Amino acid sequence: MAKERLFDLKKDGATRIYRKTTSGIRVGMKEISLRNGKKIAVYDTAGIYGEDYYVVNPRKGIPKVREEWVRGRGENTKTQLWYARNGIITPEMEYVALRESQDAPEDERITPEFVRKEVAEGRAIIPANHRHPETEPMIIGRNFLVKINANIGNSALGSDIDAEIEKALWAIKWGADTVMDLSTGKDIHKTREAILRNVPVPVGTVPIYQALEKVSGVIENLTWKAYYETLIEQCKQGVDYFTIHAGLLRKHLPCALNRTTGIVSRGGSILAKWMEHHQQENFLYIHFEDICELLKKYDVALSLGDGLRPGSIADANDEAQFGELKTLGELTRIAWKHDVQVIIEGPGHVPMNKIKENMDLQLEYCHGAPFYTLGPLVCDIGAGYDHITSAIGAAMIGWYGTAMLCYVTTKEHLALPNRDDVREGVVTYKIAAHAADLAKGHPGATRRDLEMSRARYDFRWTDQFNLSLDPERARKFHLEMIRNSDVDYCGMCGPHFCAMRISKSIKNGD
Amino acid sequence: MAKERLFDLKKDGATRIYRKTTSGIRVGMKEISLRNGKKIAVYDTAGIYGEDYYVVNPRKGIPKVREEWVRGRGENTKTQLWYARNGIITPEMEYVALRESQDAPEDERITPEFVRKEVAEGRAIIPANHRHPETEPMIIGRNFLVKINANIGNSALGSDIDAEIEKALWAIKWGADTVMDLSTGKDIHKTREAILRNVPVPVGTVPIYQALEKVSGVIENLTWKAYYETLIEQCKQGVDYFTIHAGLLRKHLPCALNRTTGIVSRGGSILAKWMEHHQQENFLYIHFEDICELLKKYDVALSLGDGLRPGSIADANDEAQFGELKTLGELTRIAWKHDVQVIIEGPGHVPMNKIKENMDLQLEYCHGAPFYTLGPLVCDIGAGYDHITSAIGAAMIGWYGTAMLCYVTTKEHLALPNRDDVREGVVTYKIAAHAADLAKGHPGATRRDLEMSRARYDFRWTDQFNLSLDPERARKFHLEMIRNSDVDYCGMCGPHFCAMRISKSIKNGD
Repeated sequence: MAKERLFDLKKDGATRIYRKTTSGIRVGMKEISLRNGKKIAVYDTAGIYGEDYYVVNPRKGIPKVREEWVRGRGENTKTQLWYARNGIITPEMEYVALRESQDAPEDERITPEFVRKEVAEGRAIIPANHRHPETEPMIIGRNFLVKINANIGNSALGSDIDAEIEKALWAIKWGADTVMDLSTGKDIHKTREAILRNVPVPVGTVPIYQALEKVSGVIENLTWKAYYETLIEQCKQGVDYFTIHAGLLRKHLPCALNRTTGIVSRGGSILAKWMEHHQQENFLYIHFEDICELLKKYDVALSLGDGLRPGSIADANDEAQFGELKTLGELTRIAWKHDVQVIIEGPGHVPMNKIKENMDLQLEYCHGAPFYTLGPLVCDIGAGYDHITSAIGAAMIGWYGTAMLCYVTTKEHLALPNRDDVREGVVTYKIAAHAADLAKGHPGATRRDLEMSRARYDFRWTDQFNLSLDPERARKFHLEMIRNSDVDYCGMCGPHFCAMRISKSIKNGD
Repeated sequence: MAKERLFDLKKDGATRIYRKTTSGIRVGMKEISLRNGKKIAVYDTAGIYGEDYYVVNPRKGIPKVREEWVRGRGENTKTQLWYARNGIITPEMEYVALRESQDAPEDERITPEFVRKEVAEGRAIIPANHRHPETEPMIIGRNFLVKINANIGNSALGSDIDAEIEKALWAIKWGADTVMDLSTGKDIHKTREAILRNVPVPVGTVPIYQALEKVSGVIENLTWKAYYETLIEQCKQGVDYFTIHAGLLRKHLPCALNRTTGIVSRGGSILAKWMEHHQQENFLYIHFEDICELLKKYDVALSLGDGLRPGSIADANDEAQFGELKTLGELTRIAWKHDVQVIIEGPGHVPMNKIKENMDLQLEYCHGAPFYTLGPLVCDIGAGYDHITSAIGAAMIGWYGTAMLCYVTTKEHLALPNRDDVREGVVTYKIAAHAADLAKGHPGATRRDLEMSRARYDFRWTDQFNLSLDPERARKFHLEMIRNSDVDYCGMCGPHFCAMRISKSIKNGD
């Protein structure tokens, strides 16, 4: 763990505040104080780390905010989907309603009943394993703020546990709504435990990676038993959602293998290899109801993996991809039958003109279950800049209705991200998600932009920094040029050519 | 000028090649040699700098590729629009036809006649001042590759001439199709001269900046005479296109001044102030025909400035913005009457859901003249990342039909860009423009992506680097993790979890 303080809201003119729901649940937010006396509350993923007094101690873990609610529901606690369908508004639902609304005008605020209805109808999920009470409730659905996920995790080539916790906290500091631990190297269990006990956001995994480690990395030796044991282990640990590639079937393979870039999903390629070797159907498909039976006991959400997502513009929207998507739709209905919450994973590499078709077919085939996409990347030749290549597609598909965007870092296709890459990736995706919120007209989404624009027009530089998604960087760039933030012009145009200054002088009749 | 070699194609497995048109005109391109023996020709903006033998010498200037053509047309040389309308295919038109087509399949190639027709009908321009024969012909129009512009130029706060030339060459190295010199500091004339004599791409300016310097920066003292003299000076120097804010009228001001961020165009604010002070109509509007008469003598293209582009999400698509756009449409017809080539400048800050309306209205109001937009930025809170905030909007509006995208750097709203910022901004915009070309289905646009994807699937790492828009960065990121590029996996997943390797092994029956 680095010595410096990872979280320091004060530096950015902010504090962690709590607003209470009608039944008294405290919902954490970040409040930015502006120089003109205004205060603006914004969505915040920092959790307890946003508290000034809180000293980070990964060995101890963070407080368990949901512990009482889970205990209150007793041993027979059900999934959020079950409660929603049975007309019960859980504390989690109440929490997210207030969390989503922030300072929206009263008549536009999201109600707990609206949350319940969205969850009940499968259009949104609240990932919240009973065994992960550290999570602050959050919701993933197209009628809510667009969320982003940051992937972390070691590989055989690098990183250790402390570095992974730090990456997770770092991702959360910059605004990641969930993190996925994609570790494939050593100490998978310990790494995951450390992450789960230290993050206030839902954690996702791809269990087949660990299952494969259990059979020494030999794909042919994978068994349903090894996989199922892994699921149980991870359910008990508190993982909130699993990527499960149960929709990849033998019939999809001929088309997939003849593509320009074949199969680019790790999980997908593993299962394809297994099926070809054993000449048997995907065991995740065969045992899908068993998986649902297990997941519902812990309320682990299903993230149905797109093993056949296109890895190149040439393969976008092909028969293999959409064939699998249809199967994911069938599986969605089965999971819902078991009251298991579901999201659907999506591409990949897709040119802009083919993005909307992805969203439309996903909604149609998967009965409105939330979509969770990786980008998509809108071209193939942006290596070294693929956070941008993918943010373009991500913003668009977010606007079209995708509920959560999985970030892509500058290192995509090339190497594992380091700390700086995680920050760059997360902030880039916050921009994409926020742009989508604006385009969708999410209640109150424009408030922060409006305050930012007013601060610009007033030359309140400190407020501009603090209202930015990355205050540190904005401040740094400005001060490198101007050296103080008390001037009524910027470093781009200098004092004599400031359009806003001239514009104001006209209005004021100077 | 930095000591290291700015351009070195060999390092990226490439060479400068020339393809000949039917009439023998040599068109420069970059050819990338792949490890599998294939060669792929790509659009190249480096000009003579791409030649291995060429030694950069800013004092000497670069060869004048268009000199003979211009001289051949004699003293009465006309604008490209005039020739096009009179059925004449100029060498410039022939050049761009081949330059745009690259290796596209024969039946999809762009013909010189198609170029002529697009120019004749005002849907495209070839910016090519007779006095700037250093320019390699290029075309801006929605039925051609989407182009990008990089702004450079000093301000009162920083930079000198050498640094500006270097920034211009640097921008061209990374793929800028035109550069705009927006200098407002000292040595405006000399800086521009140095840039013009050293770049193989069209150069644009905003003449009002220099006109204002001529009256010691006192807006009230601006006169048509001072402005007109500036135009003559810059026409003679060889500037290829001028941003002229002639569409900003007094009637637009009340609405503009009541916006959240007022007027954010420097030129726009200057003219607004002048109009308010003198209580007179915009002198650029009054003297518009005189401007056209002058510009057509040199074939300087008009870039009709959007003085009222929105500077915030709150101001997007408002009455002020679209009111001015309508006036730009009237002016377009007048310019065309004089055979002056025209492009139209566009926003600014626009949420994704309002971008298409901009494109549609621009086409309608401005009779199909090419659109040239700044971004647009899809939210206001991305300070420090506004190359990304704006690339999202740029890619989208490029797909919808914008012909040229003006880059925005990471420093936008905060400071002037340095060398690294220019590189980051240009490559980001190459991605946006290329994504738009793919989405529009430009002939041959997918070739490079296809070769990249094949190189990925074959683990030809060197080819992947060389096919990237920034080979240096791609190589650096990969080698930091892997240390050699002769492996059949990548640093993200490590050797055991490479999806593409597994996928190939299935296909090969391993």
